Amino acid sequence: MSSSYGENLRLTIFGQSHAPAIGMTLEGIPAGQALDPERLQRFLDRRAPGRNEYSTPRKEADRPEFLCGLVGKVTCGTPITAVIRNTDTRSGDYELLKRLPRPGHADYTAQVKYFGHQDAAGGGHFSGRLTAPLCIAGGICLQLLERHGIRILSRIAAIGCVEDRGALLASTAEKDFPTVDEGQGAQMRALIAEAKARGDSVGGVVECAVLGLPAGLGDPIFGGMENRIAAVCFGIPAVKGIEFGAGFAAARGLGSEMNDEFCLEEGKVRTRTNRAGGILGGITNGMPLRFRLAIKPTPSIAMEQRSVDLQSMEETTLRVPGRHDPCIVPRAVPCAEAAAAIAVYDALLGRRREIG
Amino acid sequence: MSSSYGENLRLTIFGQSHAPAIGMTLEGIPAGQALDPERLQRFLDRRAPGRNEYSTPRKEADRPEFLCGLVGKVTCGTPITAVIRNTDTRSGDYELLKRLPRPGHADYTAQVKYFGHQDAAGGGHFSGRLTAPLCIAGGICLQLLERHGIRILSRIAAIGCVEDRGALLASTAEKDFPTVDEGQGAQMRALIAEAKARGDSVGGVVECAVLGLPAGLGDPIFGGMENRIAAVCFGIPAVKGIEFGAGFAAARGLGSEMNDEFCLEEGKVRTRTNRAGGILGGITNGMPLRFRLAIKPTPSIAMEQRSVDLQSMEETTLRVPGRHDPCIVPRAVPCAEAAAAIAVYDALLGRRREIG
Amino acid sequence: MSSSYGENLRLTIFGQSHAPAIGMTLEGIPAGQALDPERLQRFLDRRAPGRNEYSTPRKEADRPEFLCGLVGKVTCGTPITAVIRNTDTRSGDYELLKRLPRPGHADYTAQVKYFGHQDAAGGGHFSGRLTAPLCIAGGICLQLLERHGIRILSRIAAIGCVEDRGALLASTAEKDFPTVDEGQGAQMRALIAEAKARGDSVGGVVECAVLGLPAGLGDPIFGGMENRIAAVCFGIPAVKGIEFGAGFAAARGLGSEMNDEFCLEEGKVRTRTNRAGGILGGITNGMPLRFRLAIKPTPSIAMEQRSVDLQSMEETTLRVPGRHDPCIVPRAVPCAEAAAAIAVYDALLGRRREIG
Amino acid sequence: MSSSYGENLRLTIFGQSHAPAIGMTLEGIPAGQALDPERLQRFLDRRAPGRNEYSTPRKEADRPEFLCGLVGKVTCGTPITAVIRNTDTRSGDYELLKRLPRPGHADYTAQVKYFGHQDAAGGGHFSGRLTAPLCIAGGICLQLLERHGIRILSRIAAIGCVEDRGALLASTAEKDFPTVDEGQGAQMRALIAEAKARGDSVGGVVECAVLGLPAGLGDPIFGGMENRIAAVCFGIPAVKGIEFGAGFAAARGLGSEMNDEFCLEEGKVRTRTNRAGGILGGITNGMPLRFRLAIKPTPSIAMEQRSVDLQSMEETTLRVPGRHDPCIVPRAVPCAEAAAAIAVYDALLGRRREIG
Repeated sequence: MSSSYGENLRLTIFGQSHAPAIGMTLEGIPAGQALDPERLQRFLDRRAPGRNEYSTPRKEADRPEFLCGLVGKVTCGTPITAVIRNTDTRSGDYELLKRLPRPGHADYTAQVKYFGHQDAAGGGHFSGRLTAPLCIAGGICLQLLERHGIRILSRIAAIGCVEDRGALLASTAEKDFPTVDEGQGAQMRALIAEAKARGDSVGGVVECAVLGLPAGLGDPIFGGMENRIAAVCFGIPAVKGIEFGAGFAAARGLGSEMNDEFCLEEGKVRTRTNRAGGILGGITNGMPLRFRLAIKPTPSIAMEQRSVDLQSMEETTLRVPGRHDPCIVPRAVPCAEAAAAIAVYDALLGRRREIG
Repeated sequence: MSSSYGENLRLTIFGQSHAPAIGMTLEGIPAGQALDPERLQRFLDRRAPGRNEYSTPRKEADRPEFLCGLVGKVTCGTPITAVIRNTDTRSGDYELLKRLPRPGHADYTAQVKYFGHQDAAGGGHFSGRLTAPLCIAGGICLQLLERHGIRILSRIAAIGCVEDRGALLASTAEKDFPTVDEGQGAQMRALIAEAKARGDSVGGVVECAVLGLPAGLGDPIFGGMENRIAAVCFGIPAVKGIEFGAGFAAARGLGSEMNDEFCLEEGKVRTRTNRAGGILGGITNGMPLRFRLAIKPTPSIAMEQRSVDLQSMEETTLRVPGRHDPCIVPRAVPCAEAAAAIAVYDALLGRRREIG
Repeated sequence: MSSSYGENLRLTIFGQSHAPAIGMTLEGIPAGQALDPERLQRFLDRRAPGRNEYSTPRKEADRPEFLCGLVGKVTCGTPITAVIRNTDTRSGDYELLKRLPRPGHADYTAQVKYFGHQDAAGGGHFSGRLTAPLCIAGGICLQLLERHGIRILSRIAAIGCVEDRGALLASTAEKDFPTVDEGQGAQMRALIAEAKARGDSVGGVVECAVLGLPAGLGDPIFGGMENRIAAVCFGIPAVKGIEFGAGFAAARGLGSEMNDEFCLEEGKVRTRTNRAGGILGGITNGMPLRFRLAIKPTPSIAMEQRSVDLQSMEETTLRVPGRHDPCIVPRAVPCAEAAAAIAVYDALLGRRREIG
Repeated sequence: MSSSYGENLRLTIFGQSHAPAIGMTLEGIPAGQALDPERLQRFLDRRAPGRNEYSTPRKEADRPEFLCGLVGKVTCGTPITAVIRNTDTRSGDYELLKRLPRPGHADYTAQVKYFGHQDAAGGGHFSGRLTAPLCIAGGICLQLLERHGIRILSRIAAIGCVEDRGALLASTAEKDFPTVDEGQGAQMRALIAEAKARGDSVGGVVECAVLGLPAGLGDPIFGGMENRIAAVCFGIPAVKGIEFGAGFAAARGLGSEMNDEFCLEEGKVRTRTNRAGGILGGITNGMPLRFRLAIKPTPSIAMEQRSVDLQSMEETTLRVPGRHDPCIVPRAVPCAEAAAAIAVYDALLGRRREIG
């Protein structure tokens, strides 16, 4: 299976881009937790399409309807289900794609896996639109984590070869284009505009930092924080890599550089550096948990591309119809936060068990 | 929990470095599969310590005893359990480490998580030694995958800043130092020797390619091949990053470069390039599945390092006792193969279900 | 957690009796399976309230809306979600029950478990209404099982001390009151009418038989067919016991009576008797799989009962408001079929894996 | 799969009757829990064969070796694995049984499921011997439950038609033949002796009561205490039925009789009766949790029985070789306690999560 995640909570994501609805069910959330729907909506709006010049103009509000799991705005302990109706669907645009798989998309692999019965319209269950229910779940977890003093920061760390500057120490959530250094952000925007003008697209890197984590979260071997976070993050379409702390840079370094020496700060054990990204042996050490995601360029580009006609089994060319984001990295930023929040909150719920 | 993996098979890894034994249980393997214990042993020997000048001299044979799951050498369909006795244990070396956590190790996080009750001897359940049972499971899966025409290649892609050259097209398993380009391999060895001489250690990158995969393996969202493989690979200590296909390089590229156009080869749908690493929408497309792991430098170095005495809560220094690998990357190579084999075989078992 | 079931499929049930909706998500159903919504509706109608003189007059149509997982009427391989809107809700009736727990209901235990944050209206997530989504999932599985030649029969085996007569060899689904022997059925109805007249309620036994099962389904130890079926059936409120084959009668017998001797029928291995209910070692033997469920009397009765006021912590009395089924056994019959269908289809999907 | 259980802990049982060993792995047990191996051994001895005149004379000590998960006698938080070596194996006795399936045994179903590759010797993975690792896990959980004030009582409630008298209010663990009423026990023994003399066997009923449970354990729908306990108990070979509280008797009763009215005892909410067996809506209500298991007669009987030769596909007869228990009910008593302890402790670990 596929569309479920979690050990102490269980998240199930359902829906296809052009089905009546998409949605999610979240089990295992403690009872008695008040949710703030306005804050959740603001979080979802960061992911929604149609926000700025770089994103697809499909303008659905992405307003979740909560079907159950709440009494008023307060969790009642049983599964929370929320759905978003699909309204702006134009299935006609995509009919041909079942026959002509788009390069870089799941059209071909879905065709093989489901023997031609997949819902091809709008990418079906593989659509980036399915990150909306991920963000509903993540937005809920973010609110719950805050009650434990845990916050998640994120930013665009790079677009193409343009990298952000400075450390990620404060929220960029209010920014239209979430970088730390605005000058670098302007260069990134220019790069996106340039790609768009050519009918091309561009990739990038998203960085997250989870602050306020207690030491001792996570489990050894397959239950490590890296395993847990990676297992959610690769559920975001277009993610092709993840690294924690120094990550691939650690692979180029020496032990004497990459070991984080322990020290005391106000009586608490800390490390002088944080190459480990806050995780040792899969378990949090109380330092910020840092990770970065490689986001490939949007595969939907306006240029003509070569493909294969699966009916006639002949090589041919196609142009992807419709208008698409020349860069999905900005919209991937809240998705990365959501993914981290889900994995971290799941681990936090599991911690209780060890206490006594 | 922590030490179990799998959807269609279930792997459980148990043991501590200095407990009576380490081992693994593998459920869900079909009945009637003959295993070749000699080949399995050769595979395990690639991981074993004490093999060459770069690895720790602890010289246990790592010979698994199969307690059940077989009739003779043939699987009988019920859980397979194999154990390796720990013989060369010197717990005394490690007694102090419960108080003085080693930088870069799980000593401190295990102490917090288990309230001081962790088995600190030899790193306990967090020891790299626990990759031996991973390799037992992986070695079994490798043999079973071959019957489906699936092979896994691997190599050292980099040590420090020295990168291997050439594509990974053939097995390097017989090589003492598994690189494609022997000249680059020699430079890597020199780098390791240099680090060792300084009492330091060095990291690197391992690359794997899974050949012969059918299209259609894996599931959407959280069940993608990336999620599945990452969830095992981060179970190998010292892995701090994973990327599939072009990975982080994809993040720097354009859509027109990173999309793999479809073509026909001998009547079969293929892609002209393989930036996607054989995975689209989480599902295999029939091209080689490629991934790379970032391995941090061995944290056990001979140099003096700063730490904190957890009893007196004072800052202090320590020297890690014992002799340690200056570079674990060579030994991580079969572990990466094992991890890939487990994840891929699990996905392959799941494929059946869709057939009718 | 709680509301999810399955190994090869995954069923999640969500909703509260008086929330906006109840529903279910079913993952793991193969793609390309045409569903017949009219047959599904007829199946759901067998469970629905307001059908006859013995059931609560709440008259919601229980018409599921499929939000996703289908293209037209054909499964597309990704999660199927269906919801039923709650329309006839009268929350006011139940407000007091949060303070005054009804004997035999989950009011008190939900209050303790969820710290008073449970949705008490209409029994919330504990309402018998949550068997409607169970029946959606079961009704889908029943249709899929038929394609493998597998059918499920069921009947009321007893109401109070009145037992049905004759063997369960044909469907009773078309009957208003599903017994084999109509005379016994008439006595049962009289017993229910009598209980109703007194403001009381009455329990009973439901029997199911799964016909056409291949030998070899199920797994040893915790994966046996008994474990699997029991794990779903106890999800039906009011089920307090389950027995397979001769069940508790086997406990009173001799080995020479209870062993089913093997024989040949048309070249196939069969057993001369079927005390085992078609299961040996947890695995189907090709004979009909038979089980019986003990259903306790509806706890909602009109009589005055003693309870405790959880606010004032004083003993008091209550009368359960509203009108309720004097006997839920007839409505439990399709629920038992649904439960069996889910467990059996899950096991059937798992069988594939062993094939090659 | 099959041989794993649990949500907050994970128990895996492995081994075949005549393989080198049988054993279990238990993950998720909190660190820092001292285990008493002598008490565990005494618990295991209650299940062991060769204890009295009614049990098979195979005389293995069933002494577990703990391979990991402990430091000394204290849990260290990582998986606990214990194995029991199989020493008194006589595979020759069983060779024929692969061809001639024994009535009432899993010989035939294992043959079908594993395509003839099952380990037939001694019943393989289906042997009653696999309840020894279940009892190791259960014995550990029993010790841990006691620290929460939770105890489990059990008894033989019936052998054949002879029923025990009196309520189960105190431990029968020290008794040779664990009934409350010794006179009834004597009659049961006579019944067993009689069956043995005839080369026959006899079944019975085991009753368990879990005392000291807090209210609020368990989850709705599929996570109820009934579902959880049933899912373990049917892992004990020969269990063919389970009922909670009044169970099948509840099905014969009226709501006014079966509803347990609430009252106050020393300021605590209790029920005046306990027909529900301590469970409402799947969740404990603080009253003793009571259940009964139907145990079929040992299928291995000395009498000649009819079977089918699976090679020649002809009907034939067989006599089961070896000596066997004429009644396994006494040995099933600690198994039932173990099963209950595992399910209850798993639920107890899950409770933490709801706290805050």
